[in-house]
Amino acid sequence: MIIQFNKDIAPKQREKIIERVESLHYKSTLVTTQKGDYLVGIGKREFDIRELGHFPGIDDIHIVSDDYKLVSRKWKVAPTTINLGDDVLIREGALAVMAGPCSIEGEEQIAKTIEHLKSNGIRIMRGGVYKPRSSPYSFRGMGIEGLKIWHDHAREANIKIITEVMQVSQIEEMYDYIDIYQVGARNTQNFNLLDELGKVDKPVMIKRGISGTIDELLYSAEYVFSAGNERLVLCERGIRTYERASRNTMDLNAIPILKEKTHLPVVADPSHGVGIRHHVEPIALASIMAGADGIIYETHEKPEEAFSDGQQTLNFTESRQLIRKMKEVIDLREKL
Amino acid sequence: MIIQFNKDIAPKQREKIIERVESLHYKSTLVTTQKGDYLVGIGKREFDIRELGHFPGIDDIHIVSDDYKLVSRKWKVAPTTINLGDDVLIREGALAVMAGPCSIEGEEQIAKTIEHLKSNGIRIMRGGVYKPRSSPYSFRGMGIEGLKIWHDHAREANIKIITEVMQVSQIEEMYDYIDIYQVGARNTQNFNLLDELGKVDKPVMIKRGISGTIDELLYSAEYVFSAGNERLVLCERGIRTYERASRNTMDLNAIPILKEKTHLPVVADPSHGVGIRHHVEPIALASIMAGADGIIYETHEKPEEAFSDGQQTLNFTESRQLIRKMKEVIDLREKL
Amino acid sequence: MIIQFNKDIAPKQREKIIERVESLHYKSTLVTTQKGDYLVGIGKREFDIRELGHFPGIDDIHIVSDDYKLVSRKWKVAPTTINLGDDVLIREGALAVMAGPCSIEGEEQIAKTIEHLKSNGIRIMRGGVYKPRSSPYSFRGMGIEGLKIWHDHAREANIKIITEVMQVSQIEEMYDYIDIYQVGARNTQNFNLLDELGKVDKPVMIKRGISGTIDELLYSAEYVFSAGNERLVLCERGIRTYERASRNTMDLNAIPILKEKTHLPVVADPSHGVGIRHHVEPIALASIMAGADGIIYETHEKPEEAFSDGQQTLNFTESRQLIRKMKEVIDLREKL
Amino acid sequence: MIIQFNKDIAPKQREKIIERVESLHYKSTLVTTQKGDYLVGIGKREFDIRELGHFPGIDDIHIVSDDYKLVSRKWKVAPTTINLGDDVLIREGALAVMAGPCSIEGEEQIAKTIEHLKSNGIRIMRGGVYKPRSSPYSFRGMGIEGLKIWHDHAREANIKIITEVMQVSQIEEMYDYIDIYQVGARNTQNFNLLDELGKVDKPVMIKRGISGTIDELLYSAEYVFSAGNERLVLCERGIRTYERASRNTMDLNAIPILKEKTHLPVVADPSHGVGIRHHVEPIALASIMAGADGIIYETHEKPEEAFSDGQQTLNFTESRQLIRKMKEVIDLREKL
Repeated sequence: MIIQFNKDIAPKQREKIIERVESLHYKSTLVTTQKGDYLVGIGKREFDIRELGHFPGIDDIHIVSDDYKLVSRKWKVAPTTINLGDDVLIREGALAVMAGPCSIEGEEQIAKTIEHLKSNGIRIMRGGVYKPRSSPYSFRGMGIEGLKIWHDHAREANIKIITEVMQVSQIEEMYDYIDIYQVGARNTQNFNLLDELGKVDKPVMIKRGISGTIDELLYSAEYVFSAGNERLVLCERGIRTYERASRNTMDLNAIPILKEKTHLPVVADPSHGVGIRHHVEPIALASIMAGADGIIYETHEKPEEAFSDGQQTLNFTESRQLIRKMKEVIDLREKL
Repeated sequence: MIIQFNKDIAPKQREKIIERVESLHYKSTLVTTQKGDYLVGIGKREFDIRELGHFPGIDDIHIVSDDYKLVSRKWKVAPTTINLGDDVLIREGALAVMAGPCSIEGEEQIAKTIEHLKSNGIRIMRGGVYKPRSSPYSFRGMGIEGLKIWHDHAREANIKIITEVMQVSQIEEMYDYIDIYQVGARNTQNFNLLDELGKVDKPVMIKRGISGTIDELLYSAEYVFSAGNERLVLCERGIRTYERASRNTMDLNAIPILKEKTHLPVVADPSHGVGIRHHVEPIALASIMAGADGIIYETHEKPEEAFSDGQQTLNFTESRQLIRKMKEVIDLREKL
Repeated sequence: MIIQFNKDIAPKQREKIIERVESLHYKSTLVTTQKGDYLVGIGKREFDIRELGHFPGIDDIHIVSDDYKLVSRKWKVAPTTINLGDDVLIREGALAVMAGPCSIEGEEQIAKTIEHLKSNGIRIMRGGVYKPRSSPYSFRGMGIEGLKIWHDHAREANIKIITEVMQVSQIEEMYDYIDIYQVGARNTQNFNLLDELGKVDKPVMIKRGISGTIDELLYSAEYVFSAGNERLVLCERGIRTYERASRNTMDLNAIPILKEKTHLPVVADPSHGVGIRHHVEPIALASIMAGADGIIYETHEKPEEAFSDGQQTLNFTESRQLIRKMKEVIDLREKL
Repeated sequence: MIIQFNKDIAPKQREKIIERVESLHYKSTLVTTQKGDYLVGIGKREFDIRELGHFPGIDDIHIVSDDYKLVSRKWKVAPTTINLGDDVLIREGALAVMAGPCSIEGEEQIAKTIEHLKSNGIRIMRGGVYKPRSSPYSFRGMGIEGLKIWHDHAREANIKIITEVMQVSQIEEMYDYIDIYQVGARNTQNFNLLDELGKVDKPVMIKRGISGTIDELLYSAEYVFSAGNERLVLCERGIRTYERASRNTMDLNAIPILKEKTHLPVVADPSHGVGIRHHVEPIALASIMAGADGIIYETHEKPEEAFSDGQQTLNFTESRQLIRKMKEVIDLREKL
C-alpha cells in the first residue's frame, strides 16, 4: 500500500494515519522525496481501503500487489522524467544518449571527447574516474582530481556528466561535479550505498547486477526511492551466462519487461551488453526498438589505446555513424 | 581446409587429391551437396597451399581457421539464399516471416490461419504436428495425418510449410508435405537426426539448443552440411538462464555474431525468446534491427484456447500489427 | 493418480475402471511394465478416492501431487533395486561402481580394463561405442563391431556392460550385447528414444541434460516408465554454468533432492561433473556422502593416449586408490 | 613476481629493489602485512631472476604465473593457518565448525545458541547483525547494539564470533566485538570494502559472489592481502544457476579447485548452498569429503520462528546430529 500525503498535511494528522496503518498490522515506512511524502505499508491482511480514504491529508491510496512498491507502475502509470537541466531529459518517448570513454584518462582525452559529443548533438558524457577492477593491480581511475578537470570542461561545453560512485564516502565528494551518479553492476546490491544515494538530490542510474534478476534491480531502485530520492534511471547492461562468444548476454527482454513493471526510465548499455566493438551498433539499434529510453555506450578517439575496455569501444567515426542511425530508429519507433 | 572440386573432376583425380591431403596428416571428409563437391581436411600441420593448388580439378582452396568449416563465412563470404520456390526466399538483406500456431489442431484452425497469412502477405506457415513435451502425458501433436491435411490447404493457398522433425523415421514420412524441416531446441545435438537430414534435399532450420552455445549451433549445422545438405537456416530462440521474468533469455547478441561467423541465414523466434505475448512485438522488431534475416512467431485466432503455448501466442489482430511494423523496420534497416 | 491393478484383473473389469476414471475428467494412460499394470490418471478435479476403491481388481490407489507420477517417491516409498543378474545390483544403501574408458578403442584396451576391474572387484564396465561429438569430424566410436568384441570379453569375465544408445535403431542392434542402456546428456529429452526404451526389458540409465533441471530428468524417466520399462537409474553428471574452472558444475544438491523425490537409484558421474583428473577423487567421495547409490567414472591404462576425455580419466593406479577409498566412505556412510 | 623482503631490510635498500623492478617495466606494489613485507611485481617481460637474487634484503623471489599472486599456492605451498586464539584454528587437515542463526534476534536466542554450541564442542558462532536484504522493507538486523550483547555472552563462554560487515564505516565499529569479519556474497566485489579490510588485523572470510567465478573470489582475496591483511578464509556458498529445486547450486568442485589454487583455508556453507533444511546434512558431509577446511551452517532453537532463513536452518537436534557425523567424516578423511 502506498499513501500519498497532501503537501500541507499537519504532522499530527500524519501520525494518526501511521498509527491507523500500523493498527492494521502493516509495517509502515515514511518516505520523503524531492516530489512528495509517501507512506509505504507492508502487510498481508486485507482491509477496506475506504477506512483510510476518509482521513484528511491523504491525496491518494494505492494497493500495489508487487513486492516493490514505489517504483512500481501499478500505482504510478505516468512515466517518470529525469530533468538534468538545460533541456536535457531522460524520459519515455525519446532517446537520451550518453557516450564517452570507459575511463577518464586526461585533459586532452576529455577535450576531444567533448568536441566529438558537441558536434554530434550529444548532451551527456559518460566516463569512469573510480573503476571497479577484478584485480587490485589494474588501473583504478584518476579519482576526484580527474573528475574536477572533466567537470571544468563539461560545464563550459554545457555537457552533463554521468560517472560511477563506488562507495558512500564518494557521494559527497563527487556531488558538485556530476549530474548523475551511476551505480555499477558490482554494486547493484550494495545496500548501504543505495541507502545513502537516497539522501541526495541528484539522479541515480542503477545498472543491473552482473547476474541480477529484473526484480532485484527493481528492489535496488526501491531502496533509493524509499530513502528519499525518486530521480532514478535503470540500466540493462547484459548478464552473465554460460555463453562466451560475447562478453555478457544482453537481455533485451528486460527492456519491455521493465517498462511494464516500473515508471522509471530504462537505458541500455550495448557496449557491455555485447562487449565486441563491431557488434555494438546492431545491439544499440535493437535496444531502441525493444523500447529503451536511452543508450549509454563507450567511445574513444583511439580505442586501441584506451586504458580499459578498448575492445568494446567505438572510435569517433563509428560513434558518429551510430548516432545518425539511432536518430532514424527512434524517429521510426515513435511513428510506428 | 576446404577444397572445392570442379564439377567435371574425374574420380581418379579426386582420389589423388585425397591421398595428397591425407599424406599431409589431414583427416579428409568428402562432401557432396546439392551445390557442389568439397573435401574438408582437418589437421594442424602447416603446409604450402600452393602444393595443392596446381592439382587439376580443384576450383578453389580455403584455409578456414574456425573449427567448423563448411558453414564458416571465412571461406564463403557471400550469404547463402534458401529458395523455397514460388519466389519465397530466405536471404540476407530481406525479411522472411514465418507465422502460425504452436500446434496444428485441426482443419478449421489451419484454414483460418492460412487466411490470416494470405491477407497479410505471409508466405511461410509454422506449426507443430510432432510436439516435444517434457511430460509424457501432454498433447503430443496430430502427427502425420495432421500434416497431410495442413499440406492440402497450404498447397492450395501457395503457402510454404515449416514444421519440426523429431526423429529419423519422420524424415521420409514428412518429405512430401513440408518445405522446411525444423530441428527443435531439444534436438540441436541429436547428431543422428542431423546426419540423416544431411541426406535429403529440403531446407533444414536448426534452432539453438536450450542452453546451447553459438559454436555448438554452428557445429550442428556443420553436421548437416558435411552430410550433404547445405540448404540450412539457423534460429535464435532464447537460452536458459537464471532469469524467470521471461520464459527464456533472448540472446540478440547471437544474431550479429552468427551473421559474422556464417554465411547461412539467421532467423529469430521472439515467441520463445521472451515467452510473453505482449512483449513479442518489441523483441521481434529488435531482432530485425539486430540483423535477423527472418522472424518466426506464433499466432492463433484465439490464443487462450490454443492447445499449447497460448501465453506467448499473438492473436490475429496483434499479428497483423506486428507484420505492418516489421515491414517498416526492415525498410528502415535496409536504408540505414 | 496411480491405480495399481491386480495381476489377475479381467480385461473387462479394467475397461470399467478406465471408463470410471475418464468420467471423472482424468486423462488415463494404461501402463504395463515388467513388474505390473498401472493406470495413470492426469486431472485436476477432486473426487472421493473411495469411489474407486471398491472396484474389484484394484490393488492400490495413490494420489500423487507431483507432476511426474510413476517415478515419484510419493506413491512408492520403497527404493527400486535394479538387478543385473549374477548378484550385480544397483540399489539404495549400497554403492554400484561403474568404470571404464570414455571410448572403446580396441581389444587390447578392453582386455586390460577388464583385468583392472576384476582385480579390484568392480562388476560393471562403462565405455562408449557410439560417441556424441560436437564436431562431425571427431572420432565417433567403434560402433556395433566394437560392442561385440567388448561383449565377448565381458561375458567371459562376468562383467556387466553399460554403454550409450544414441538413436532408436541402435536399441535392437545393441540389445544382446549390453546390460544397461545409457541415455546421454544430449539425449535426455530425445522423447522418441525414451519412448522406445520403454518397450525393452533392459535397464536404462538416464543422464541429466547438459542444462536440464532435476524435474526434467524425472519427467524423462517418466517417459520410459510410462512406456513400459521401470528398470531405471538416474545420473547426475554436472550442469552447464558460467564457471569455467571446471568442465561442468557438479550439482551435488541434486543427489539428496532426487533421492527424496524418486524411488529410482541415483548415480553420480564425477568424471564429467568436474572434468579434471586430479579432482575426480574428492568429487566421487563427496558424491557418496551426498547419498549417491552408485559412481560411474572414466579410467584408462594411459589416459594421455585415450581417444577422448583423457584430461578427466584416471589411470589404473588412481582408479585403484579411488576404489579403496570409496569402500571406506560407503562403509562409514552406512554406519552413520 | 613476489619478492619477500627480509624483516631487517633497510628502507633505502628496499627503494633500490623497487627501482630495479620498475626498470624492468614491472608495476610494483609494496605490501606490508602482519607476517611480512612483500613486493608484488606485475609485468610481462621475461628477465633473469638472478638479476634480483643478489640484492641484499631479499629472502626469496617467486615467479607466479597466476594473475592473482599473493593468494596463489604457486609461491606459498604450505597452507595458511588462521589462529583465533584460545586454540581455535582454521587450517588444512582439520575441520573448523561455525554455527548459529541467520540473524541475531535477542539475548535469549544468543544464550540458548551458545549453550547448544558449548555442549557440542563448537567454538565459533555465526550470526548476522547487519543483514543484506533484497527489499528495503525487510528486517535489516539488530545492528551494533545486538553485536555488543552477543559479544558479552560469547566472551564469557569463550566462543568466537564471525559476522558480516557490509560497509567501510562498520569495520571500526565492529572491531572490538568480533573475531572474523565476513564479507557476504553481495559484497565479494565491493572493492572499497576489501581495501579497508586489508588495513585491519583481524581475519576476514570472503564468500564467493552470487554468480562469482572461482578466479574472482581469489582476486577479491588478493585485494585484502595486497592491502595488508593476509589472515584470510574463503567460503563456497553456492552459485546462481537456472535450477530452482534448490536455493543455490552448491559448487563442490570449487573446493578441491580452490585448495589447489590457493594456500588459504576454504570453508563450505551448506545452508545457503542447498537452502533446504533436510538436505543440509548430506551437503555438509559431502563438502568435508570434497576437502573443506571448515563448515559454516545455520542453526536456531526454533527455525520456524527465525527472523530469516528458517527454511534452511537446522534445529538443535539436527545440529547435534550433524556435528556428530561431521566428526566421523573428518576422522575418516584424515585416515584415507
